[in-house]
Amino acid sequence: MSRIDGRTPDQLRPVTIERGWSKHAEGSVLISFGDTKVFCTASVTEGVPRWRKGSGEGWVTAEYSMLPRSTNTRGDRESVRGKIGGRTHEISRLIGRSLRAVIDYKALGENTIVLDCDVLQADGGTRTAAITGAYVALADAVGWAQRKKLIKHGRQPLTGTVSAVSVGIVNGVPLLDLCYEEDVKAETDMNVVCTGDGRFVEVQGTAEAEPFTRAELGSLLDLAAAGCAELDTAQREALARTL
Amino acid sequence: MSRIDGRTPDQLRPVTIERGWSKHAEGSVLISFGDTKVFCTASVTEGVPRWRKGSGEGWVTAEYSMLPRSTNTRGDRESVRGKIGGRTHEISRLIGRSLRAVIDYKALGENTIVLDCDVLQADGGTRTAAITGAYVALADAVGWAQRKKLIKHGRQPLTGTVSAVSVGIVNGVPLLDLCYEEDVKAETDMNVVCTGDGRFVEVQGTAEAEPFTRAELGSLLDLAAAGCAELDTAQREALARTL
Amino acid sequence: MSRIDGRTPDQLRPVTIERGWSKHAEGSVLISFGDTKVFCTASVTEGVPRWRKGSGEGWVTAEYSMLPRSTNTRGDRESVRGKIGGRTHEISRLIGRSLRAVIDYKALGENTIVLDCDVLQADGGTRTAAITGAYVALADAVGWAQRKKLIKHGRQPLTGTVSAVSVGIVNGVPLLDLCYEEDVKAETDMNVVCTGDGRFVEVQGTAEAEPFTRAELGSLLDLAAAGCAELDTAQREALARTL
Amino acid sequence: MSRIDGRTPDQLRPVTIERGWSKHAEGSVLISFGDTKVFCTASVTEGVPRWRKGSGEGWVTAEYSMLPRSTNTRGDRESVRGKIGGRTHEISRLIGRSLRAVIDYKALGENTIVLDCDVLQADGGTRTAAITGAYVALADAVGWAQRKKLIKHGRQPLTGTVSAVSVGIVNGVPLLDLCYEEDVKAETDMNVVCTGDGRFVEVQGTAEAEPFTRAELGSLLDLAAAGCAELDTAQREALARTL
Amino acid sequence: MSRIDGRTPDQLRPVTIERGWSKHAEGSVLISFGDTKVFCTASVTEGVPRWRKGSGEGWVTAEYSMLPRSTNTRGDRESVRGKIGGRTHEISRLIGRSLRAVIDYKALGENTIVLDCDVLQADGGTRTAAITGAYVALADAVGWAQRKKLIKHGRQPLTGTVSAVSVGIVNGVPLLDLCYEEDVKAETDMNVVCTGDGRFVEVQGTAEAEPFTRAELGSLLDLAAAGCAELDTAQREALARTL
Amino acid sequence: MSRIDGRTPDQLRPVTIERGWSKHAEGSVLISFGDTKVFCTASVTEGVPRWRKGSGEGWVTAEYSMLPRSTNTRGDRESVRGKIGGRTHEISRLIGRSLRAVIDYKALGENTIVLDCDVLQADGGTRTAAITGAYVALADAVGWAQRKKLIKHGRQPLTGTVSAVSVGIVNGVPLLDLCYEEDVKAETDMNVVCTGDGRFVEVQGTAEAEPFTRAELGSLLDLAAAGCAELDTAQREALARTL
Repeated sequence: MSRIDGRTPDQLRPVTIERGWSKHAEGSVLISFGDTKVFCTASVTEGVPRWRKGSGEGWVTAEYSMLPRSTNTRGDRESVRGKIGGRTHEISRLIGRSLRAVIDYKALGENTIVLDCDVLQADGGTRTAAITGAYVALADAVGWAQRKKLIKHGRQPLTGTVSAVSVGIVNGVPLLDLCYEEDVKAETDMNVVCTGDGRFVEVQGTAEAEPFTRAELGSLLDLAAAGCAELDTAQREALARTL
Repeated sequence: MSRIDGRTPDQLRPVTIERGWSKHAEGSVLISFGDTKVFCTASVTEGVPRWRKGSGEGWVTAEYSMLPRSTNTRGDRESVRGKIGGRTHEISRLIGRSLRAVIDYKALGENTIVLDCDVLQADGGTRTAAITGAYVALADAVGWAQRKKLIKHGRQPLTGTVSAVSVGIVNGVPLLDLCYEEDVKAETDMNVVCTGDGRFVEVQGTAEAEPFTRAELGSLLDLAAAGCAELDTAQREALARTL
Repeated sequence: MSRIDGRTPDQLRPVTIERGWSKHAEGSVLISFGDTKVFCTASVTEGVPRWRKGSGEGWVTAEYSMLPRSTNTRGDRESVRGKIGGRTHEISRLIGRSLRAVIDYKALGENTIVLDCDVLQADGGTRTAAITGAYVALADAVGWAQRKKLIKHGRQPLTGTVSAVSVGIVNGVPLLDLCYEEDVKAETDMNVVCTGDGRFVEVQGTAEAEPFTRAELGSLLDLAAAGCAELDTAQREALARTL
Repeated sequence: MSRIDGRTPDQLRPVTIERGWSKHAEGSVLISFGDTKVFCTASVTEGVPRWRKGSGEGWVTAEYSMLPRSTNTRGDRESVRGKIGGRTHEISRLIGRSLRAVIDYKALGENTIVLDCDVLQADGGTRTAAITGAYVALADAVGWAQRKKLIKHGRQPLTGTVSAVSVGIVNGVPLLDLCYEEDVKAETDMNVVCTGDGRFVEVQGTAEAEPFTRAELGSLLDLAAAGCAELDTAQREALARTL
Repeated sequence: MSRIDGRTPDQLRPVTIERGWSKHAEGSVLISFGDTKVFCTASVTEGVPRWRKGSGEGWVTAEYSMLPRSTNTRGDRESVRGKIGGRTHEISRLIGRSLRAVIDYKALGENTIVLDCDVLQADGGTRTAAITGAYVALADAVGWAQRKKLIKHGRQPLTGTVSAVSVGIVNGVPLLDLCYEEDVKAETDMNVVCTGDGRFVEVQGTAEAEPFTRAELGSLLDLAAAGCAELDTAQREALARTL
Repeated sequence: MSRIDGRTPDQLRPVTIERGWSKHAEGSVLISFGDTKVFCTASVTEGVPRWRKGSGEGWVTAEYSMLPRSTNTRGDRESVRGKIGGRTHEISRLIGRSLRAVIDYKALGENTIVLDCDVLQADGGTRTAAITGAYVALADAVGWAQRKKLIKHGRQPLTGTVSAVSVGIVNGVPLLDLCYEEDVKAETDMNVVCTGDGRFVEVQGTAEAEPFTRAELGSLLDLAAAGCAELDTAQREALARTL
């Protein structure tokens, strides 16, 4: 049984990673997972938040947002509503944690890198595309900071690579990288963040309709690990290109 | 090697579930997991939010909050800061999803049940205690609504039971039901929500220090499933007592 | 004519004061005036707000809040609404002023004590129970600060004791310590805060229906002064118990 | 011993009440108590807030605010800070309650009157000047509504008159109508709201330094009652003038 | 064809400028353009905002607000709504820019002057009346600062004078200083801010109904320049009077 | 004397207008004025805001925002700060007014079109690029609504075309379409919105340093009118391309 867009269950959507999409940011990427497009910028500033001053350690944080018409029907702007919704908060925190998992704060020194992930067009998997793209922007920002000597010679703040993908069970079949139409029908929905060496940074599985079994969880993790390995390759290829 | 408080790795802290703690709420529970104490109330109102009107289906939602001095150092009130933090949002959403996993909206009819989970004292595991206690308050509220005929005769909105526990890896050892002191040292931290029949509703694992392997994930899920089974028993015993 | 709950007009509801209700706070009390239950914690921190720095004087302040289902019908959380209501503001300010009336700022030194009064269950008189309970929590916090040498040896920041009670005229009869059902029927409603030596710290009388005469005001003050004297005894007994 | 501005202890500051100060509002007054100047408008709208619809009863409410430079040093605007402070809330509520004490909601019918009291210049006693001026604006607004037939022929929503004054103990001497310089030195500060027939609507006494005795309270109430009687006369004279 | 209030197309409404309207502010003016009345205060404080510290230069800023019943129907308070509307923001910024156009920051030294412009009664042209009045309040505040030696001897921070007026096309006829009734009918509406020497500081023209031609724009600028010249005279006369 | 980027004073930066940049929005455009890139979407919904219901007329409004790293240094998100800044408000209002100038509300019928203009990269002229791009998105959205029969057969809501450009005086020379580096040095800065037939919709000129003369204003308007005529051509060409 083939999927809505003709993919096999274990197939990613086409992934594109364009670096250097902003002339201002120290790192910037336009990433697409099929029709999902996220613009990720990495901004480096010297210094750290007050609670970290004098520690000799840096900080990495992230903010996620959706443009009001990135979705099928227009959503209100959170700036206009005057507050950030729970989903936005949750995803911003997830992105930040995922990237911090591959950061050596000591090597970064007292510098702060902020990742902004703005969804230009949404079709499922925006948070996983954001993490995957933000890693590439982060890597470029770290390179910039090394060249600018903000990071001490010979120190490498990146301890690994990180990427993310969604998986879910639709009509009883475990599928990789759900598009929006699949996502709304999924009985179980899971977002998985992996390092390049195949270990897990985050596993967030939610039963949308039916609780899931240990066996189903296993199948989803298999799919996700394989998907992240492919994304890891795409990230490496993007970073290998001359900017 | 024994734990800070003398427990074995697979041992829960003492659990107490006191029902009927409020004279106003349709369901109310004071639950404790060791020194973590959460006050859970379930409020039933006829009618549903606007977006659900006319559907014939009910709604269940939750709000989580910590009293300012439930923790070791006093935190600012979110009402005074004028906005809800990301962590609060995230946990409120988690509690709501967990309880909705065992609700048959049709059977509930156009009624709304709000679970308020206020942490009176925190010592790790506040979200899992909240879910476990909220389920009991929810069950009492459903019983109240059945007696008041808000729910049609013979309908049972509860499709199962739900409980939650935290697990984590501390100094390389997988542990069940972390207290605060263990939680801050954990390399990996996971919250697991299970139904009474042993299936999973939510699995949220986070690498705090080192990414974790598939094998470690397996050990943690084993511990959590066993812990939830014990909590399920405690919930049933509490509900069996005359109020 | 006896009252709803069988009391005489000049009779308080049963008062209980449990100290040490929190393992984290420097002072903590669960106080009940009948079915009204307020959880009061006192948090000590070294230092004072910026506007008071270098003065050598301390500061005491208070925050009052009701849990959403402390009342008969659930109220919205102020954190969710994003702002604090006028009533909450007013009561927080009243509690703070009442406690500051028995504080010697010089003796306290540059330390801050914050009283958090969270209403777990409301049945009239929540602000007066809060003041009465907060005084006991404050006394424990002061004792803690003396033992920790945050307060200089031999200095006593407490210049007296303070308690509070509500009085009102219901069907023309002056009554002490109104429960909710009496409160909503009261023609006049008054909250009185007294020191242990029988003087007044706050007198707030409001004509809910009919303006009141000087004679009626006199009767209410008599009732209140007697009620506060009883509460003063209850506070002293509670503080005399070993924690 | 004479006062800062040469008054005797029982003497009001010069009071002026100018009606018709706005061409838009249904009632408007510029009132001054010495250098304290408050601009009060009464706005009539047909209809009542949602919670009162269909009751056949009207509603009266008030909002108080200080212009940023009404005081000696400029204060931040509450609109710029994004929230209303506790003091503002408290005074707005006091003004509203005071005026509602002389309103017959049935006679008013389903109309709403909002009193806006904006302090143009502050020199102590702004809330009492606001209440006293707002009553006059309210009376004019009621007259307007009667002429416009919003209020049924022959119905009188005003059941009496209301005015307010501050009193306090300064250097042990009870004084009437404190100016700012006296107010900051007062040991006890009280705001008293009376009806024209000499009864009390609100009594709010606060010990700023020392708790006060029953005898002191008595002296202050005597002063206040006499002061309100004078203000009542000033209100009647103002309302007797042709607009 | 004569105007609603009998004026000729190039005629201002009666202008009054009363200085010294506040005993607290360093400069204060009640200005009226016909029935439009704006209360302008200028507050001087030593020091500048953080981003300007150490520059040796001062700062001038402005805040505009309308009292809720300054208009024909009552508007909500922005403090109650918890946010400032776009129109208020826009006008506050316009007033600030207009006054800064005639300020020599170096001569002002590290002092800040805040202009508060509160509309007591609105009948069109509130922003232009505010600018015109605020300039006079600013001039008085500068004089005060010179006398207090906050400004160095011999330095003059005012590099010129500034005033403003509205113009518009109503029924095809260019008109000066629109009242509210004209303003709502205008096809084109323009606010013009001029210096005393006849140059432009701000020109803000908006087509409300039909786009306007270059020729129409020319006519409007002619009217506005002549109107500002008259206002400049009124400002000079007001400042020449003994305070 | 040539400009920073080699342009002549009356030369626009390269303009690109890409339609169909979003698969969700009814109209969408990525416009660039040199390095300034703005993403404009037009969202059509049936129905109008409450205050317009039953009028038979439609509504068009706009929201402008800058991504946090669209500028050289990262700015805080307005959603995180919890309020919209004055500049954002001002520009959103300007865009909305500009587009409404070419809308026939009756022909639009009771439909609402919201224009979202999000700046992806800023290099001066973001508001003028936003207006110019938003017009094209609006035109596509109108076409969509016509095809979907939301707009009655034969009705054309667009009464003309609209575009905008900035002009300014830098070192005494009037320049067209300022880039950021020129903008910060400009003595006078003006934004001009024109219809395709060469009339003016908005003229907003501000003296940043020196007040400007009538002659200078004339030169700037000449430049702007010529610039808008070029932009009009670019819009027509973009709309002529097959989507």
